[in-house]
Amino acid sequence: MRAPSPDFGSKTSAMVFDAYGTLFDVHSVIEACERQFPGHGIELSRLWRQKQLEYSWLTTLMGGYEDFAEITRRALSFALDSLRLTPGTSGVESDLMAEYDRLKPFPEVPDTLAGLARTHRLAILSNGTEAMLTAVLRGSGLSARFEAVLSVDRIRRFKPVPEVYRMVPDLLRIAPERAVFVSANGWDIAGARSSGLRAIWVNRSAQVPERIGPEADWTVPSLSSVPELPLP
Amino acid sequence: MRAPSPDFGSKTSAMVFDAYGTLFDVHSVIEACERQFPGHGIELSRLWRQKQLEYSWLTTLMGGYEDFAEITRRALSFALDSLRLTPGTSGVESDLMAEYDRLKPFPEVPDTLAGLARTHRLAILSNGTEAMLTAVLRGSGLSARFEAVLSVDRIRRFKPVPEVYRMVPDLLRIAPERAVFVSANGWDIAGARSSGLRAIWVNRSAQVPERIGPEADWTVPSLSSVPELPLP
Repeated sequence: MRAPSPDFGSKTSAMVFDAYGTLFDVHSVIEACERQFPGHGIELSRLWRQKQLEYSWLTTLMGGYEDFAEITRRALSFALDSLRLTPGTSGVESDLMAEYDRLKPFPEVPDTLAGLARTHRLAILSNGTEAMLTAVLRGSGLSARFEAVLSVDRIRRFKPVPEVYRMVPDLLRIAPERAVFVSANGWDIAGARSSGLRAIWVNRSAQVPERIGPEADWTVPSLSSVPELPLP
Repeated sequence: MRAPSPDFGSKTSAMVFDAYGTLFDVHSVIEACERQFPGHGIELSRLWRQKQLEYSWLTTLMGGYEDFAEITRRALSFALDSLRLTPGTSGVESDLMAEYDRLKPFPEVPDTLAGLARTHRLAILSNGTEAMLTAVLRGSGLSARFEAVLSVDRIRRFKPVPEVYRMVPDLLRIAPERAVFVSANGWDIAGARSSGLRAIWVNRSAQVPERIGPEADWTVPSLSSVPELPLP
């Protein structure tokens, strides 16, 4: 974690963002999968993502831990094997993994963050390792927007355990009701709300709501609607 | 849980079975989904099962609990909504839920259990509630085979947390190394092995192994191969 800066002036509220799928578009992972395995890009990237989440949940339930880079590699290995896709060269898996460092932010993200940064302290709370998050933030030119980058790697358990979301008040030294968590994942919203944070669900693809855990305080179709909300 | 019977004679080892998908074939759920929503039976039953597992994992990670019947109902509600399937009558969801009480054992299960019961204490360890397990065992005529039916409902956390698998030595009063757990789910095997049980993976559909947690001690294509293993 990058230490919170004391230089946040008079801002009394924080906005904390999930990274993958919320700020950064994972679509380029689909394209890279399609380049390597023509005709299989969508099914490979979908299974890879599903197993990435499953493995993060399962390892935490079993009381173990491996960082998100390793979890992501294991999920890719399963997905390739399960779909009977054989990498042509030994570098294919690491090429696909490297896509995670090159993700682009969704189009509305840079301007929206610039606006929100005038009124709110901004931070990231992600399953990603510090190295993964540093790389993707640097590549997108967004590093300077964030006062803190909080990785679950610090507590060695993945979302949605309560300890992850408690890092927000604990490490930003802010009352939970002054922090708003923003994610595109419904289950991530449920975890944050269960832990006492307010939450905004960015539902870009008009998914139906999950039937587990508390609902989002607000649902928006893209990040650009966030500044219009009656935020704390 | 049905109390373990003291009448297990000189048997010193136990075989403990997962229920859904391991002893009982969930295929009839697909058929019921297809009857209600022609052309969508497979995708509905697949999404329903995936969300059932996800919700069991997520609620445990968030520190909450609802029993497996309620988790299953919530997963069905999500799956129907997500696939834009509208039940024609109000009874459709409860009709689909009722399929879980009518599942048939896989063909080789009754005879294999009859044979194993001569040499081993037999038990079930399942996410299902006691009511769900009692119904499906009664319907299949297999109740009398089992000395104990252990439901996670007793500890209000779902597989694969270690506490679930520790119910086996604790409640059967047996050393962990004298108990063999049998499941068709790779992640369930990983959980049992992480908790010190031996485990047999019944891999009927030739799935590739999961890349998380310890591997099975033995892998078999159906339950009928189990008696040939060098069991404790």
